Amino acid sequence: MSLYPSLEDMKVDQLASAQLRYEAKHVQPASPQASAPPPYPLNPTYAPRAGAPLYPALSDFMGLDLSPEALAELAPQYAVAVPQPTTVAVPAAPSGPLAGMVAPLSGQSLGLQRAQVTHGIRELTLCKDGSGKVGVRVQAINKGVFVCLVMKGSPAALAGLRFGDQILQINGITVAGLSMEQVHDLFRKSPVNGISVIVRDRPFERTITLHKDSVGHIGFQFKNGKIIGLVKDSSAARNGLLTEHHLLEVNGQNVVGIKDKEITALIEEGGPIITVTVIPSFVYDHMVKKMASSLIKGSMDHSIPSV
Amino acid sequence: MSLYPSLEDMKVDQLASAQLRYEAKHVQPASPQASAPPPYPLNPTYAPRAGAPLYPALSDFMGLDLSPEALAELAPQYAVAVPQPTTVAVPAAPSGPLAGMVAPLSGQSLGLQRAQVTHGIRELTLCKDGSGKVGVRVQAINKGVFVCLVMKGSPAALAGLRFGDQILQINGITVAGLSMEQVHDLFRKSPVNGISVIVRDRPFERTITLHKDSVGHIGFQFKNGKIIGLVKDSSAARNGLLTEHHLLEVNGQNVVGIKDKEITALIEEGGPIITVTVIPSFVYDHMVKKMASSLIKGSMDHSIPSV
Repeated sequence: MSLYPSLEDMKVDQLASAQLRYEAKHVQPASPQASAPPPYPLNPTYAPRAGAPLYPALSDFMGLDLSPEALAELAPQYAVAVPQPTTVAVPAAPSGPLAGMVAPLSGQSLGLQRAQVTHGIRELTLCKDGSGKVGVRVQAINKGVFVCLVMKGSPAALAGLRFGDQILQINGITVAGLSMEQVHDLFRKSPVNGISVIVRDRPFERTITLHKDSVGHIGFQFKNGKIIGLVKDSSAARNGLLTEHHLLEVNGQNVVGIKDKEITALIEEGGPIITVTVIPSFVYDHMVKKMASSLIKGSMDHSIPSV
Repeated sequence: MSLYPSLEDMKVDQLASAQLRYEAKHVQPASPQASAPPPYPLNPTYAPRAGAPLYPALSDFMGLDLSPEALAELAPQYAVAVPQPTTVAVPAAPSGPLAGMVAPLSGQSLGLQRAQVTHGIRELTLCKDGSGKVGVRVQAINKGVFVCLVMKGSPAALAGLRFGDQILQINGITVAGLSMEQVHDLFRKSPVNGISVIVRDRPFERTITLHKDSVGHIGFQFKNGKIIGLVKDSSAARNGLLTEHHLLEVNGQNVVGIKDKEITALIEEGGPIITVTVIPSFVYDHMVKKMASSLIKGSMDHSIPSV
């Protein structure tokens, strides 16, 4: 995983470091005896502590104290509204390097972990289901063999094979240069259990991390799963999303063959950070051209991968 | 970086783990009093120790002892040849999990570190040279702006910009959707120093790690930098290299515009592990189509990047 998966991550990191440098330079560590007359007598909780956030929390801001005691003293008409004279639990100001910042850091995003495209090698062990199928269809591209359909609930789906994975070996047989039919034949002739498949992780794909703006938009248009336009100054434009690419995954969940409306719903429900995994459209078109669209729409595995 | 960049890495790791499991099962830890009559009395250094390699070193093999003492006792005619009766320093058998194995592990390869394509974001600070140039040419692809020429010795080359990098922002201006001319104009109008450029690391590219076989071949043919064929059962075929791709880097060093002969020489001199960074040929053709081939051949930066 790269240090900064999105431009927002880099900016936030730069802001945070700048803030830390500024703090270290300007905020003096408060010695216990130093500030004898506290500058904000109405708010006993506020003092520029060492390691405290540069910007005080709301209740500290400008010395305005909103605690019930202060309200009762200064503005009794509002204090009446408080049913019980207990102290209101003001959330503690966060401490640490990002104190006081609401940072959209992608690194903590589950979607990013699920959607990580490593281009590395891994080995899967498949079996056949009741009807003798592994549940995978492939397409040959440039002497490579690529997975273009993983059937819902099939052994291949359970093993974690994904759309776009490149198959390198099946039971020790290198498949480079084989045709679609030859590879399907290899699977057919395999034993029922312990089919070893070595794959390279989605060579043509990459994952882009986007951050929703204040109204929940990430900033691109798509039609039939293909990205056709970018919104100016959106997260998609900032992060270099490209048109003429197909959406394959949203937050790591396969969306091939899903209706645009449902993809939109997935994005809306997907939290503030959205990862989209994309593939150039000419590769996508080549991969799906030999499959009936009913097969893509009806049989593709759309489960959420486990991390 | 993925756990296994190449198929060979995965196989070696699997072999090493299998060997370790076998050792743990079959090689008994030797207690000091256990083997009262040592099985090989002529060689006092050999004993199946816990954690010792499964296969003994040459001097231990079959109990044959080549130390000067043993030679003097058994075959005095050879012992004469030893000028001084000091012990010959037999190299200590390696210990640890890979003891006795010569493993082609790509993880230690410098080329792999140099060639790592992260698809992540980074910020560069450029300046202009004496003639007011940054030293970069771009090409617009699908609303994105891509670096298609980094001039030899220019500020862009020194800052580590590479062929295929996607430019996201120049001095805070998002370049998504701009044309080649508009981006060149942005660079022209930039100040001389402190031009901030935010790039995404080579989105269309990926790196494939190959291991030379016993005669030094990695197993693919190329013509004018384009991969046109794979050799059956070679490392290139096993690792899923694809045809219709252009070679951009060999061990992290840019080879765009270099003659095929020189690329072959680079591969031959590059050590047992070769990383090739490739890009689909249709993207490559689009990126270079507006540049004179003399520019690509004469001006492209071919320096070896620092890790």
